Amino acid sequence: MPELAYVNGRITPIEDALVPVEDRGYQFGDAVYEVIASYGGKLFCIDEHFARLDRSMKELRFPKVQVDEIRKAAADLFTKADFDRAGVYIQISRGVSPRNHAFPANVPVQVVMTVRKIEEKKPSVRETGICAITVEDFRWGRCDIKTVQLLPNVLAKQKALDAGCYDAIFVSNEGIVREGSSSNLFILTGGVLKTHPLTPDILPGITRALVLDICLEKKYPVKECFFDKSELYGSDEVFLTGTITEVLPVIKIDGRTVGNGKIGSAAITLQEGLLGRLKK
Amino acid sequence: MPELAYVNGRITPIEDALVPVEDRGYQFGDAVYEVIASYGGKLFCIDEHFARLDRSMKELRFPKVQVDEIRKAAADLFTKADFDRAGVYIQISRGVSPRNHAFPANVPVQVVMTVRKIEEKKPSVRETGICAITVEDFRWGRCDIKTVQLLPNVLAKQKALDAGCYDAIFVSNEGIVREGSSSNLFILTGGVLKTHPLTPDILPGITRALVLDICLEKKYPVKECFFDKSELYGSDEVFLTGTITEVLPVIKIDGRTVGNGKIGSAAITLQEGLLGRLKK
Repeated sequence: MPELAYVNGRITPIEDALVPVEDRGYQFGDAVYEVIASYGGKLFCIDEHFARLDRSMKELRFPKVQVDEIRKAAADLFTKADFDRAGVYIQISRGVSPRNHAFPANVPVQVVMTVRKIEEKKPSVRETGICAITVEDFRWGRCDIKTVQLLPNVLAKQKALDAGCYDAIFVSNEGIVREGSSSNLFILTGGVLKTHPLTPDILPGITRALVLDICLEKKYPVKECFFDKSELYGSDEVFLTGTITEVLPVIKIDGRTVGNGKIGSAAITLQEGLLGRLKK
Repeated sequence: MPELAYVNGRITPIEDALVPVEDRGYQFGDAVYEVIASYGGKLFCIDEHFARLDRSMKELRFPKVQVDEIRKAAADLFTKADFDRAGVYIQISRGVSPRNHAFPANVPVQVVMTVRKIEEKKPSVRETGICAITVEDFRWGRCDIKTVQLLPNVLAKQKALDAGCYDAIFVSNEGIVREGSSSNLFILTGGVLKTHPLTPDILPGITRALVLDICLEKKYPVKECFFDKSELYGSDEVFLTGTITEVLPVIKIDGRTVGNGKIGSAAITLQEGLLGRLKK
């Protein structure tokens, strides 16, 4: 099967999938989304992704939606596309209505999905780790809601690429390290793993939660706490976590070598632990 | 003629105008826009709007675009729709490409326009002024670029409506008064008009610039400077400015009466001055 799209029940090849120009997702970024990865033909963490999607819609006061129906449609679309290793993208917008900032009355949400093969990273990326830059966190104040307000993330990612790096790490103007442009961030320092606590400033990552859970299981000391750029630079290990990212070691930040410049054992163990969860 | 849309050269009724689901405007909010108003069948400040559109695209490093051609297409669409009093909405996105944060290579921008009749505000709104609330400015850090990163503006506007008010005024977490949810803001205090200076935190409004120019012409003392919420509350007059808003007096903020609770003479004079410019 080709890569497929779904628009409000209609399934087509992706290039034929269209939405109205007055979809609020298009004119206001008034839309939420999820990306679900499959491994071996099975969608991973589907409960967690749909729970977060539901929360995102509630936080934005979207009209009531039958999340179970969307979940079933997503599973059906994935089955139809028949890929072992795919990313299912689900975007729900507040609906179609003549342009006006105020919430429209009695307008149904728009449900759009795509299924695409996941292009695996070059093995060298996971074997040697990646380089990153830090950028000022200039995103909006509700990064805990997974919306398409992603232009700052786009600009940060491109800035990293232009600098010959793989990703950008957002740092607040007070120096607090937040997360990557599409991933959460962990550091290992003084034998303790640290990651930013859940606040409106970061995404409540599903892989982040899995990694925290694996740390508990393995009795790794771990703390959800704030840390600043100097602690980031001085860490023994740094890694990003995310649905597509998995656990990805960072070996250089702003040109400074992290730890000994090689991928660290915590990252390796947690990546193995994460992939181990797929078999459960 | 009906209200019309334009998508990359194709003109249709608005409800038939569609864009691909992988338009970056839809999945990342990676798009800029303008709204141009017409009076008496003539587009107002078209040079200024296209100059700002061009700047927005340059700031975001969009692929090179023939702005003059888009301008001609906008004028043609407006002529075809044949309204005296219309809003021409122009949105340009970075293009269509499989979802990936990085800028896509060799992909043309997407140009979408709509022409809709402007629904005039009830006369009472302009005669008696409006009520507003203040909300924390939780927008991203580049509000000077006119992008569709508008979800915070949507949420602020809706919060105002829910509170029985007309609009919301963004105030920074240090207490600096920025602007309305889709307009700039002026205050009159101690005989001086004040408005937020042009920084990345506010939109460089075209009506704002016109109002500043009219102030010069009329020799009104005017200052582009920061002011805080207590100065806002204590003002003799407060008004919003914008393409559709024009000059709109605010008579109550957070339940507190502004000045004597009636629309003020500065706002009245500047609104007259603005409408006077239409005849030039």
